[in-house]
Amino acid sequence: MQLPYLFIFSLLLAAAASDALVQDFCVADLSLPAGPAGYPCKKSASVTVNDFFYHGLTTPGSTKNRVGAGFAAAFDAQFPGVNGLGISISRLDLEVGGLVPIHSHPAAAELVLVAEGTLTFGFISSYDNKVYIKTLNKWDIMVAPQGLLHFAINAGNTTVLAFASFSSQNPGIQTTPLALFKNDFPTNLVAKTTFLDVEQVKKLKALLGGTG
Amino acid sequence: MQLPYLFIFSLLLAAAASDALVQDFCVADLSLPAGPAGYPCKKSASVTVNDFFYHGLTTPGSTKNRVGAGFAAAFDAQFPGVNGLGISISRLDLEVGGLVPIHSHPAAAELVLVAEGTLTFGFISSYDNKVYIKTLNKWDIMVAPQGLLHFAINAGNTTVLAFASFSSQNPGIQTTPLALFKNDFPTNLVAKTTFLDVEQVKKLKALLGGTG
Amino acid sequence: MQLPYLFIFSLLLAAAASDALVQDFCVADLSLPAGPAGYPCKKSASVTVNDFFYHGLTTPGSTKNRVGAGFAAAFDAQFPGVNGLGISISRLDLEVGGLVPIHSHPAAAELVLVAEGTLTFGFISSYDNKVYIKTLNKWDIMVAPQGLLHFAINAGNTTVLAFASFSSQNPGIQTTPLALFKNDFPTNLVAKTTFLDVEQVKKLKALLGGTG
Amino acid sequence: MQLPYLFIFSLLLAAAASDALVQDFCVADLSLPAGPAGYPCKKSASVTVNDFFYHGLTTPGSTKNRVGAGFAAAFDAQFPGVNGLGISISRLDLEVGGLVPIHSHPAAAELVLVAEGTLTFGFISSYDNKVYIKTLNKWDIMVAPQGLLHFAINAGNTTVLAFASFSSQNPGIQTTPLALFKNDFPTNLVAKTTFLDVEQVKKLKALLGGTG
Amino acid sequence: MQLPYLFIFSLLLAAAASDALVQDFCVADLSLPAGPAGYPCKKSASVTVNDFFYHGLTTPGSTKNRVGAGFAAAFDAQFPGVNGLGISISRLDLEVGGLVPIHSHPAAAELVLVAEGTLTFGFISSYDNKVYIKTLNKWDIMVAPQGLLHFAINAGNTTVLAFASFSSQNPGIQTTPLALFKNDFPTNLVAKTTFLDVEQVKKLKALLGGTG
Amino acid sequence: MQLPYLFIFSLLLAAAASDALVQDFCVADLSLPAGPAGYPCKKSASVTVNDFFYHGLTTPGSTKNRVGAGFAAAFDAQFPGVNGLGISISRLDLEVGGLVPIHSHPAAAELVLVAEGTLTFGFISSYDNKVYIKTLNKWDIMVAPQGLLHFAINAGNTTVLAFASFSSQNPGIQTTPLALFKNDFPTNLVAKTTFLDVEQVKKLKALLGGTG
Repeated sequence: MQLPYLFIFSLLLAAAASDALVQDFCVADLSLPAGPAGYPCKKSASVTVNDFFYHGLTTPGSTKNRVGAGFAAAFDAQFPGVNGLGISISRLDLEVGGLVPIHSHPAAAELVLVAEGTLTFGFISSYDNKVYIKTLNKWDIMVAPQGLLHFAINAGNTTVLAFASFSSQNPGIQTTPLALFKNDFPTNLVAKTTFLDVEQVKKLKALLGGTG
Repeated sequence: MQLPYLFIFSLLLAAAASDALVQDFCVADLSLPAGPAGYPCKKSASVTVNDFFYHGLTTPGSTKNRVGAGFAAAFDAQFPGVNGLGISISRLDLEVGGLVPIHSHPAAAELVLVAEGTLTFGFISSYDNKVYIKTLNKWDIMVAPQGLLHFAINAGNTTVLAFASFSSQNPGIQTTPLALFKNDFPTNLVAKTTFLDVEQVKKLKALLGGTG
Repeated sequence: MQLPYLFIFSLLLAAAASDALVQDFCVADLSLPAGPAGYPCKKSASVTVNDFFYHGLTTPGSTKNRVGAGFAAAFDAQFPGVNGLGISISRLDLEVGGLVPIHSHPAAAELVLVAEGTLTFGFISSYDNKVYIKTLNKWDIMVAPQGLLHFAINAGNTTVLAFASFSSQNPGIQTTPLALFKNDFPTNLVAKTTFLDVEQVKKLKALLGGTG
Repeated sequence: MQLPYLFIFSLLLAAAASDALVQDFCVADLSLPAGPAGYPCKKSASVTVNDFFYHGLTTPGSTKNRVGAGFAAAFDAQFPGVNGLGISISRLDLEVGGLVPIHSHPAAAELVLVAEGTLTFGFISSYDNKVYIKTLNKWDIMVAPQGLLHFAINAGNTTVLAFASFSSQNPGIQTTPLALFKNDFPTNLVAKTTFLDVEQVKKLKALLGGTG
Repeated sequence: MQLPYLFIFSLLLAAAASDALVQDFCVADLSLPAGPAGYPCKKSASVTVNDFFYHGLTTPGSTKNRVGAGFAAAFDAQFPGVNGLGISISRLDLEVGGLVPIHSHPAAAELVLVAEGTLTFGFISSYDNKVYIKTLNKWDIMVAPQGLLHFAINAGNTTVLAFASFSSQNPGIQTTPLALFKNDFPTNLVAKTTFLDVEQVKKLKALLGGTG
Repeated sequence: MQLPYLFIFSLLLAAAASDALVQDFCVADLSLPAGPAGYPCKKSASVTVNDFFYHGLTTPGSTKNRVGAGFAAAFDAQFPGVNGLGISISRLDLEVGGLVPIHSHPAAAELVLVAEGTLTFGFISSYDNKVYIKTLNKWDIMVAPQGLLHFAINAGNTTVLAFASFSSQNPGIQTTPLALFKNDFPTNLVAKTTFLDVEQVKKLKALLGGTG
C-alpha cells in the first residue's frame, strides 16, 4: 500500500524524456515530408482525441458535376490519425443517374458498403478481363481487389449513399478517363495506345479539359 | 486487320494451362488449412461474383444478450473474397443502453462509422494509459489503432447501428472480460494478475460461464 | 582433425528429417493451390538449378498481332524459382510502329530497360493526371510506380527489344482496352463509366472480341 | 598488383558523396520525429559499435513496487541500433511472489526465456478464450502471439530472471489494470464495459492512481 | 440475467463450423508443404500449450567438434508455435577457445544475449566493410543486422553460454567456410571468386569434407 | 454540360493545399535522412520525368581493376525515382576472364539477365551448402535468393554484359573477400572464424588494402 508504483514506471520516464514509445499510433504531421511508409508522427504531447475522429463525412461532397457524384475522403491528408494504420474510408453520394467513372486504387483494396439506394458496382479482373458486376442494396457489401479497374452507378431512382473502406491510409485514385484525357497526353499517343478513334480522343479532351 | 489477336494471348494460354496468374485476388478455399498469410485460393474457374459480395450484414446480429449488442462479421471466414486483401468489415447493433465490452483486435486497426444513433467510442493508449473518448453521431468516424483496448456504448436513447472496418481480413477479437472470466483461468491467478478481488473474479466467472 | 564435424550438423539432421529449413527459397509447386503469399514450396530434394534458370526469354513472343508487340513473361507460373522472392521479368519485342497498349500492374512497380531500338515510355500519375513521358535509347531505364497506367511505343525505325523487371513474382497485367472491350461488359455501362460514345464502344468491342 | 582497386570503388564514392547506401542498418536518430516504420537513421559517419551494443540489461529494474517486478527494456528508445530491424528484448526480474500483470503487446509477438527460477507464463487466445499456461524452468522458452493478453508469475521460492524477445523494435505494452484504472476513464464506463462492480473499479482507481 | 450469452456467440459458432478465425496464431503443421510465409496452420482443435513451449534449449548442443561450439535451435522446424510470428531463438555454447565461424542469416536480424562467460561478437557492414566488434559480458546484448556477416568467439577462460533471438521464425544460416568449401564448388571457381590461393582452397575442402 | 468539373476536384484542392496524396510514388529527397522504409519524398511540385529516368547505365563502369569487372548501379542513391518502389537494377561488364567475387545482397533477391557473352552464375544455399551453377547465354536469366552468396564469371572469350534486377531499391552488397580482408578485422580473428591460414589472411589483407 505504501508502494503504489508499478513496474513500468521506469519505462515511462524514459518515454517522457525522449518522446519515444509513442508508436501505438503515428498521427501524421502533415507539415513534414512523407516517406514511403507515410508521414512522420506528431509529438505525443500534441495528439488529441480529435486526431482520431473525423466529422468531414457527415457532409456529402457536391454532386453538381458531370457525373452526379459527390466524393469526400478521410485519407491521411484529411484524417491524420490513420497514418500508418493501413485503413481509410470515403463517402460517395450519387444522384439519380449518377456514377463513379472507371478507376483504380493503385495502393489498396476497396470494400464498399451501401447505406441508401441501389448501387451497381463492378470490377474487372486482369488475367481474363472478366467483369464482376453486382447490384447492391442497403447494407450489402462488395470488395474490389487492389489495383483493378472498377466503377459504380446508381441503379435506382433514389439517391445513393455509400461508404468505401480501403486497406491503406492513402489508396490513390486513378480515374481512367481523366488519366487519358484530362492532361497533355498527345492525342495520337492516346489513340494508338487505347485503340480509340482520334476524333473520340479529341472530343473527350475537349470535354474534360485536356490539351494536345 | 485480319489479326485481331492481342499480344497477351500467349500469356493467357499459359494461365489456362496452369491455373496460374490468378493472383489479382485469392478467394479463400475454406476447406484447406490456412497459413500465416491466409487461406489457399479457390481455383479461378470456380470463382464467381458472389465470392466478392456479401449480403450477411443486412441482418442485425441478435441483441438478446447481456450487453444489448448484435454483431455480424464479414471476415474471411464469412466473406472469402477478402482473403489476402487486408480488409474486412463488421456490423454492430446496440439497443438503448447497449455496449461493446472492452476488447482489442490483435491483428488490425479499426475504423468505426456510425450509421444510426449516438455512439460513445473510446480507446486507451498503451504508453501512458490515456483514454481517447468521443461521442459520434451519424456518419462520424473514429479510428482505434491496432491491438489497443477499446469499447463502444450507446450514448443516446435510440438504437445504434455502426460499421467497423478493419485493416485485416481476420482482425481477431479479444474481449477482456471474456478472456479473464469465461474460461478455466484459475481464480487466484486472475486476481493476482489483474489486482481484482477474488470475490469479484468469482462473481464474474459465475456470470460469464467460467470455472476455476 | 579427427573431428571434422561442424557445429550445425545437428541442425542439418533435423532439416533432413522434416524437410524444414529450406526457406532460403521456395520454388513454386504449381500443382498445389497458391495462397496470398504465393505457391507452396517444392520439396527441397526435388529442387534443381533449372528451377532458378529460365531460357524462355531468348525467344521473342510473336509480334504477328494488331499491335506489333511480342511478349514473353518469366513470372512465377513460367519461372517457379521466383516464387516468394518479390521479383520477376518479361521480354518485350516491338516491330516498327509497334506498341504496348495502356495497362497497369496491380501488384508491382515496373522497371524497363531498353536493349535495342528507341522506345517511348510513359506513365500517368493518379492525383493530378500528369503524363511522364520519355524516349529511351539503348540501356536507358525508366520506372513506372505500382498500379499506375503506362504504355510503350516503338519510336524509331528499327525494332525494339526491351526487358521489364517487376517488384513481384506475379505483377498482374490489366490492359485497359481489353478490360473495357474484350468481355461482356454491357456497352451502355462502358460508355457511361468511360464517357466514350456508344458507337466507339461498339466498334472496339467488335474489334477486340467483346460482346454486350 | 598495380591495380588493387576493386570493382565497387565507384559505388563507394557515390555513397561517400551522398551518405546513401547505409541501409544495412538504420540506427535511430531519436532527435528527429519517428514515422510509421521507425526513426530516421543517424548519419553513417556518426554510427559506432556502441549503437549496436547495450549494457543496460545487466542491471535489474527495481522490484520495490506492488508487484515485486523489475523491468528493463532494450527497445528502440533505449537501444537505437534495433531501429528498423524488427527485434528487441527486455529483462524481467521477479521477487518471490512477484508477477507481471495481464498485458499485451500491440505490435509484437513475445518469446520468453527463463534464466533463473521457476516462472508460470500464460496467454489467452482470442477466438475461444482458452488459457495456455505452462511453468518454465531454466532455459525453457514460451511464445505469446502478437496482441494477446498474457502474464507471468514467479512460481517458485527463489527470484526469477527472464528475458523477453519481441518481433518489433517497439512492441508497445498495454497493461490491462493500468489501462482500466490508472487514468480518468469514468468509473461508470469502466464498470459497464468490463462487467466489474463499481466499488471494485473505485478501489482499483484509488490503488493505481486513477481518477473519475 | 437469464441471458448469460454474450454477443460474440454467433461468431464463435461460425468459427466452430469452419475452423476459421484461429489466426491469433498459426502453429506449423510440419507435415504439409510450407509456402513463402511459412507452414500451414495445425487445426485449432489439436493445438495445445506444448506447441508454444520448448524445452529443447535446456540441453546444450554438443561442442565436440572443430570449433568447440554447441548449437541448438528453436526455429519453426523445432518449435512450430513460432510459425508466422516473426521470432525465434537459439542457444550457443562455446568451450574455452570455441567460436562460431563467420556466417549470415539471410532472413533475419540477430540479437545476442550473453548468459555466461565473455563473448567477442562482431559483424561487418556491407557498404564500407567496417567491422563492429565488441566484447560482451553477462547480460550484455548486441545486434547484427539482417544478412550481414558476423561471428562470435569465446574471449575468456570459462565456457560461454549465449542466446540469439531472430526477427524471423526461420532465419537461415549461411556459414561462409561451409558455403565455400563443404560442397562440390569447383576449386578453381572458389579460388577465383574469393582471391584465395588454390592450395588454401584444397586444404579447406579436405578439412571440411568438400570435393572438386 | 456547363459543368465540366469532375467529382474529384475537391479532393485535388485538398492535395494542392497540403502536398498530400502524392504517394503514387515517393521520389527520394536525398538531402534528408532516410528511415527504415527509405528516403522522404521530394515535394510533388519539383518531381519531373527525369526522376523516373536514368541514363547512367549506358556507360559501363571501368573494368580496369583486379577482377576485370565494371559495375554501375541504379539504386535509390543514383536513381531516386525507385525510392519506396521495391525495385532497382545494375549493369555489369566483364572483360574476358573477368568475374564478380563472391558476395550477397542482405536486402534483396537478384535476377540476372545476360545481354552479351557467356556468363557462369552461381549461388549457394544455406541449409545444405549446395552450389547451384549454370552457364547463361544471351537473354538467359537466373535468380539468386535474398541474402545468399553468389558469384558470376565470364565463361567465354568475349566480353560479358549483364543486368541484375533487385527486389529492393537498396539491395546492399557485401563482397566476402572485401568484408574479410579490406578492413582492420584482426588477422587472427579472420583466420579463426574462417579456418583460413594466417599467411593466407595476411596475403589478402596486403592485396586488398586491409590492416591488422
